[in-house]
Amino acid sequence: MSITVVGSIAFDSVTTPFGERDRMLGGAATHFALAASMFETVHLVGPVGDDFGERELSTLRTRGSNIDDVERISGGKTFFWKGHYHDDLNIRDTLDTQLNVFEHFHPKLSEASRNSEVLFLANIQPGLQLQVREQCEGARFVALDSMNLWIDIARDELVEIIKRVDCLILNDEELRQLTGKPNLVSAAREILGWGPSVIVAKQGEYGAALITSDHFFSLPAYPLEQVVDPTGAGDTFAGGFVGMIATQLGDGNGQALSTNVLSNAMAYGTAAASFNVERFGTEGLEAVDGAAVRKRVGDLWRLTRFEPLDVDLIS
Amino acid sequence: MSITVVGSIAFDSVTTPFGERDRMLGGAATHFALAASMFETVHLVGPVGDDFGERELSTLRTRGSNIDDVERISGGKTFFWKGHYHDDLNIRDTLDTQLNVFEHFHPKLSEASRNSEVLFLANIQPGLQLQVREQCEGARFVALDSMNLWIDIARDELVEIIKRVDCLILNDEELRQLTGKPNLVSAAREILGWGPSVIVAKQGEYGAALITSDHFFSLPAYPLEQVVDPTGAGDTFAGGFVGMIATQLGDGNGQALSTNVLSNAMAYGTAAASFNVERFGTEGLEAVDGAAVRKRVGDLWRLTRFEPLDVDLIS
Repeated sequence: MSITVVGSIAFDSVTTPFGERDRMLGGAATHFALAASMFETVHLVGPVGDDFGERELSTLRTRGSNIDDVERISGGKTFFWKGHYHDDLNIRDTLDTQLNVFEHFHPKLSEASRNSEVLFLANIQPGLQLQVREQCEGARFVALDSMNLWIDIARDELVEIIKRVDCLILNDEELRQLTGKPNLVSAAREILGWGPSVIVAKQGEYGAALITSDHFFSLPAYPLEQVVDPTGAGDTFAGGFVGMIATQLGDGNGQALSTNVLSNAMAYGTAAASFNVERFGTEGLEAVDGAAVRKRVGDLWRLTRFEPLDVDLIS
Repeated sequence: MSITVVGSIAFDSVTTPFGERDRMLGGAATHFALAASMFETVHLVGPVGDDFGERELSTLRTRGSNIDDVERISGGKTFFWKGHYHDDLNIRDTLDTQLNVFEHFHPKLSEASRNSEVLFLANIQPGLQLQVREQCEGARFVALDSMNLWIDIARDELVEIIKRVDCLILNDEELRQLTGKPNLVSAAREILGWGPSVIVAKQGEYGAALITSDHFFSLPAYPLEQVVDPTGAGDTFAGGFVGMIATQLGDGNGQALSTNVLSNAMAYGTAAASFNVERFGTEGLEAVDGAAVRKRVGDLWRLTRFEPLDVDLIS
């Protein structure tokens, strides 16, 4: 069941307490595709510039991803982001953002990309996400990411596209900002009323929570002794999450997914993200192998399970 | 197996988005005792002032807690804290702190309090915690809480007392501050090297993680649609955690506790804390009944469990 992702393909210059990298391959669509391609064939959609070379294209093609819709804009420059992480990796400063070829991007999907059963709308301007959604009418599971910027300056359009997806994947503080509800459960419930059947709250180093109309599921981040570069962790999580769901859709759609499939999607997303943050940029996901991911899913099972003991409590 | 707790007994004036309360009963030892008394008999040790009335003493006696060592200081005033919570309940401003009778407190434990097999050293000056530890030589499980203030101004004494306990329960940012290691797992590993066999990282609304030399366990906070007053959540968690352990010590000591007992202690602590934050001050834990706590432990089991699905991954 193929997966289409539309979003940024970028060069990232990153400094963390563990080193620095200049103009390494990054971007939401890139990180998503590297994870999702472990599960199903991925179609990447996004613009790059003249500065985007064969080496980068080759990385995008990892595990058979299709890059026919990676559009090279003649005379343009690839999206660029520069950031600095503090000793506490939860804190980062953005030092530079250059939209470049993204400034005039209008997604045009090939028939193959339009026909994917599964669609991920990575974080771009909500109006563009709507344009893509309209081109993929047959998609049976559509997930969406966004960011605080669009809640600030394009909330109406963002709500419009959220109404037309099955799954919203957002940082938990963005869920609160979007709804004005400081409580995660009530924020998620409000958005479930708009249309999506699944809400995923990304909680950074604390993991993620999943809320549907009749279930709440929570999973910690995979415990690591060293996190080297958190860039792209959320998109890698989304790639593992959506990729796993793509293997399990069967003849149904997003509404028909069982609680255990959704929980497994959380576990595969979490495991994928752990390989991303252990190394810089795309290094971790380029090198990862399936057995290692499955092993970490088993670890996550073990480190969250307990068998309730019954004790006599005094009331 | 009786439990002794030494720590603050206080009046709290609290404003949250859901209301306010003036001079309600609070304090770390109070919140701990209200939770731990569901499991075993609790001996409370701490000073109060002339302003502490029969109604407050009666609440401290909930579920048979022993208050013989609650010392009334003639002419003194009870510890007072005033705080304001923002719409985002994770953010609070301390508006006033009056140590009052705590300024010259020197814990003197009765024989009954000294003889408890289980001891909780709530957050007070580390030198005082050391004095208590020395009076309770026979304790088989000793847990300790502290705060950033003592890491700042009394780190050496704090490390000294940490070396002499079985379990350290601290906010995760305090674990990082204490060790200078920004990564939770490595911070916990360093402290395990000092002596304790169990580290619990409290993570507020995200729940808590437990680290031993051979296990990592993580549990989310109990999902609630409305949190009314987070004051005392950490101490209530500690009360449920330590209380559950007290029921399971058997003939062993802290080192002999199984992984599943520790995980259950996390679940009972988390369930207890959820009843605390649903209402103001001590209201939730005064009213709670054992069946409701056990039900929430079962809920926590359900909302964290999944059965791993095996998928063919492309490497």
